[in-house]
Amino acid sequence: MPAGEGGEVQLAHGGGGRAMAQLLERLFLPAFANPALAARHDGARLELDGARLAFSTDSYVVSPLFFPGGDIGALAVNGTVNDLAMCGARPLYLSAGFIVEEGLALATLERVVASMRAAAAAAGVELVTGDTKVVERGKADGLFINTAGIGRIVAPAPVAPRRVRPGDVVLLSGDLGRHGVAVMAAREALGLRTSIASDCAPLAAPVLALIEAGCDLSCLRDLTRGGLASALVEIAETAGVEIALEERAIPVRDEVRAVCELLGLDPVYVANEGRFVAFVAPAHAERALEVLRAHEVSGGACAIGSVQAGAAGRVVMTSSIGGRRVVDMLSGEQLPRIC
Amino acid sequence: MPAGEGGEVQLAHGGGGRAMAQLLERLFLPAFANPALAARHDGARLELDGARLAFSTDSYVVSPLFFPGGDIGALAVNGTVNDLAMCGARPLYLSAGFIVEEGLALATLERVVASMRAAAAAAGVELVTGDTKVVERGKADGLFINTAGIGRIVAPAPVAPRRVRPGDVVLLSGDLGRHGVAVMAAREALGLRTSIASDCAPLAAPVLALIEAGCDLSCLRDLTRGGLASALVEIAETAGVEIALEERAIPVRDEVRAVCELLGLDPVYVANEGRFVAFVAPAHAERALEVLRAHEVSGGACAIGSVQAGAAGRVVMTSSIGGRRVVDMLSGEQLPRIC
Repeated sequence: MPAGEGGEVQLAHGGGGRAMAQLLERLFLPAFANPALAARHDGARLELDGARLAFSTDSYVVSPLFFPGGDIGALAVNGTVNDLAMCGARPLYLSAGFIVEEGLALATLERVVASMRAAAAAAGVELVTGDTKVVERGKADGLFINTAGIGRIVAPAPVAPRRVRPGDVVLLSGDLGRHGVAVMAAREALGLRTSIASDCAPLAAPVLALIEAGCDLSCLRDLTRGGLASALVEIAETAGVEIALEERAIPVRDEVRAVCELLGLDPVYVANEGRFVAFVAPAHAERALEVLRAHEVSGGACAIGSVQAGAAGRVVMTSSIGGRRVVDMLSGEQLPRIC
Repeated sequence: MPAGEGGEVQLAHGGGGRAMAQLLERLFLPAFANPALAARHDGARLELDGARLAFSTDSYVVSPLFFPGGDIGALAVNGTVNDLAMCGARPLYLSAGFIVEEGLALATLERVVASMRAAAAAAGVELVTGDTKVVERGKADGLFINTAGIGRIVAPAPVAPRRVRPGDVVLLSGDLGRHGVAVMAAREALGLRTSIASDCAPLAAPVLALIEAGCDLSCLRDLTRGGLASALVEIAETAGVEIALEERAIPVRDEVRAVCELLGLDPVYVANEGRFVAFVAPAHAERALEVLRAHEVSGGACAIGSVQAGAAGRVVMTSSIGGRRVVDMLSGEQLPRIC
């Protein structure tokens, strides 16, 4: 990917795994070198006239637009709300940019906007500015939405990958894989029938509760594209630590596990839209679990591992029968257009 | 466009004219009712812990990606920089969301990113957070970019359409129509050959200079989709005033005028990416013109009309031979995919 090497953009470059990390490292980070971007977090931390802000953006290209448990509108609101929360911030304001394919039913756009409105109300954010572009038939796929968001940072210390320390306990907020499996199952071509609904939900409430409870958080990360595994490898690489996981501690619903086996997917790589990991100082882990479990969206929270000095950048999983394997980032693209 | 009426999204819904205004009024404004959105400005004014912020977003779908005088990258930076400036703000931080079609040459993406980097440096903004999504071949048209931006409001009083008052002088920062004509001419199918380059440029410097000079500005607006005419009609409607224009005072280069006549376009509806209008108290108009003319990007600034009590929402143009006509918003879509 260095200049002059040639090549084309592949689906994997948007997959949340190794190819995307390389695109970021080789193209975007050098071009826009600045500390906020270099922190490689879900959003930027900014100071402006004494105010401490988080700023984040995501585009949403999910296919289909509607799926069990959500739609592109709810996803576009919750996704950016969650990225702000992962910066230790209270989400406040969103922008929305719509790219619409000519011929989209106005009723579809109305339904998506109504869903965004409901999601914004539920997350306590206001959509304050926006933009609509329309492209000719065949030049987009129905509807793409970008949201950017501003939040007020409330965490007393930075919450960021580089702050992860040996000893930290890794907490997971609930079961994995429902969003990715729900979207896949909604694709008619697959002919899958399941009762699995996306976990799409706003995560600011449990995060703010952790901060209010005084829990010493070094990093938060929501587990979207690339899933738990890719997120943890990226954090381990940025922090220069090893992360040790217990496979049997990672909750996956039976039905999700069954669909994953059918499709040859590993749930630790499947995207979630309402799940996050928190890296917490060991003395605060029990209290943090209590706080998380008091919120419905993180009612299934559990400890899944810990941070070791070990080999920098390595994530090791101990299986239920005691075997140990190194977990890498998602390689290639497992589930395109999942968010 | 009310719920249940049916219908489809048309290209005109993204054209910056009447259809887009109706979509905004009937769908987006009611759904996300809040004062920032209701101000109908280029961006939202927000207060956060004492800091006064402007927040704005735009998606860019211009076709082709490269055209004389610019490309989608420069456009994506300058467009949002300019929207922030129009709020009376110093642009500071940008986000960037890329939606890439599988198969785009990496060299193309590199060229666009290099252009964004140069444009950000020229405008004095930092790109601090971003996102990349890739969709399958045929599901997007090469590359779409969304940028959102945060600026620090420096204007002492709000700069917004509703503040426009009878008596205000309307200043235009330079000649019209170059961006739209340059992009059209770059479309191979048209077979046009011109030497016209886009006026794409950052406008923050002259705006900040107007504010520093103490000019009493009631409104600023950059003249993108829908052109001068649509912008003025929207402002006249929001402020409940009449705007009177002198056609012969509006600068249009001969070559632009010639292409417009060939294509049946009126330059007052053609999109610009480096032009804006300033509504200024009459006592400050001369000084404001001097300030604008001291900056290269607004070196051709001139007074083109004034605000009257008259008929609310009406824009009237006096032609060079003395005839008067009412100017409406762009109806339908004149130049799709212009930004």
